[in-house]
Amino acid sequence: MDEKIRVITVKQSVFANNNARAEALREELKKKGVFLINLMSSPGSGKTTLLVNLINRLKDKIKIGVMEADMDAIVDAETIEKKTGVKTIQLHTTGECHLDAKMVQEGCDGFGVDGLDLVILENIGNLVCPAEFDTGANMSIEILSIPEGDDKPLKYPLMFTVADVVIFSKIDALSVFDFDFKKAEDAILELNPKSRFFPVSAKTGEGMDKLADFILEQVKNNK
Amino acid sequence: MDEKIRVITVKQSVFANNNARAEALREELKKKGVFLINLMSSPGSGKTTLLVNLINRLKDKIKIGVMEADMDAIVDAETIEKKTGVKTIQLHTTGECHLDAKMVQEGCDGFGVDGLDLVILENIGNLVCPAEFDTGANMSIEILSIPEGDDKPLKYPLMFTVADVVIFSKIDALSVFDFDFKKAEDAILELNPKSRFFPVSAKTGEGMDKLADFILEQVKNNK
Repeated sequence: MDEKIRVITVKQSVFANNNARAEALREELKKKGVFLINLMSSPGSGKTTLLVNLINRLKDKIKIGVMEADMDAIVDAETIEKKTGVKTIQLHTTGECHLDAKMVQEGCDGFGVDGLDLVILENIGNLVCPAEFDTGANMSIEILSIPEGDDKPLKYPLMFTVADVVIFSKIDALSVFDFDFKKAEDAILELNPKSRFFPVSAKTGEGMDKLADFILEQVKNNK
Repeated sequence: MDEKIRVITVKQSVFANNNARAEALREELKKKGVFLINLMSSPGSGKTTLLVNLINRLKDKIKIGVMEADMDAIVDAETIEKKTGVKTIQLHTTGECHLDAKMVQEGCDGFGVDGLDLVILENIGNLVCPAEFDTGANMSIEILSIPEGDDKPLKYPLMFTVADVVIFSKIDALSVFDFDFKKAEDAILELNPKSRFFPVSAKTGEGMDKLADFILEQVKNNK
């Protein structure tokens, strides 16, 4: 294990009043001027690669921290820290399939978010359970990768209902996969009319500037 | 809704003795000569497309039924029935992120599995929760698609521990995605030394004959 990566084990709240906890965390972060993004997706949608690319576009403009949640591994936190240099912590859920507000609060307390402008929480790779819990974040982003297919909003409706932003990732793979953007966007807008869409490729960089500008604007509006 | 697709809503057992229920279901199916496969994967790994291709290679040799589990949608069951003609039923979990043995038992009872040689249960697309519950199946298969990456065994260890067979799907996408088979296989074998691997493309048909032969052999050995 890379000794530089701190690991915090977070446990789910037994007595659930998750919404109230989430609101309290949001209030606390607001006072500190910290904007929290909850990043969700399927396993293998390219969350970590996208994060590295995004952070490297933003890190000279704002102070960023990353909380990487995983059931067990520390590979993502190591990758983020090595490739971006920003402050990173690993949250371990010891098998839990999602994060709730208490777990995120414990993560923030252990991490130390004071002085950061933006904290990105990489949730467990799962389109079902993470959507059920308000994490206390200011914005929820769902990454839908092109190879997963344009029918995912139909099959995981809650995820696309709670996500404020949908990033269509791996658009460089359109050479081998069919993906009907209009079909996906129409289905998502039916679930959440306020959704915003960003098609990107972290590999080629296409669309990443627009996404970075949007995130920067949200962080500045939070001050 | 296509009226031909039957939908059964299945509910999780409140009083969990899941392992005993799973054993009982396995016994019952054994007596009936039914081989049950539990098919698991991330969302968008190509489970349904692969199933259609596989079933069309097997349906003239054995009697097959498909139980499609989803939280809410019926698109997969419709696709399977339309493209293969085999008996199909949709199980709805009403938001639950996995299937347990009681849910599968209810599914089998409602479906009517008598006379079938092979029943394929398409579990909820999720690498976390389905791995925690013995469904009563004779064999668990995990589909890992090439775009998801070779690091998934490290990040979702329980899934690769419980899976008897790992299908590497979408190998036609190797033109745009790097995937180190040796790295993936070594990590999986460390979790489950008995794992068997099948690299396939349902799109080009590559590897599908070998997979179909293997399944057929398992079904015949069950008699």
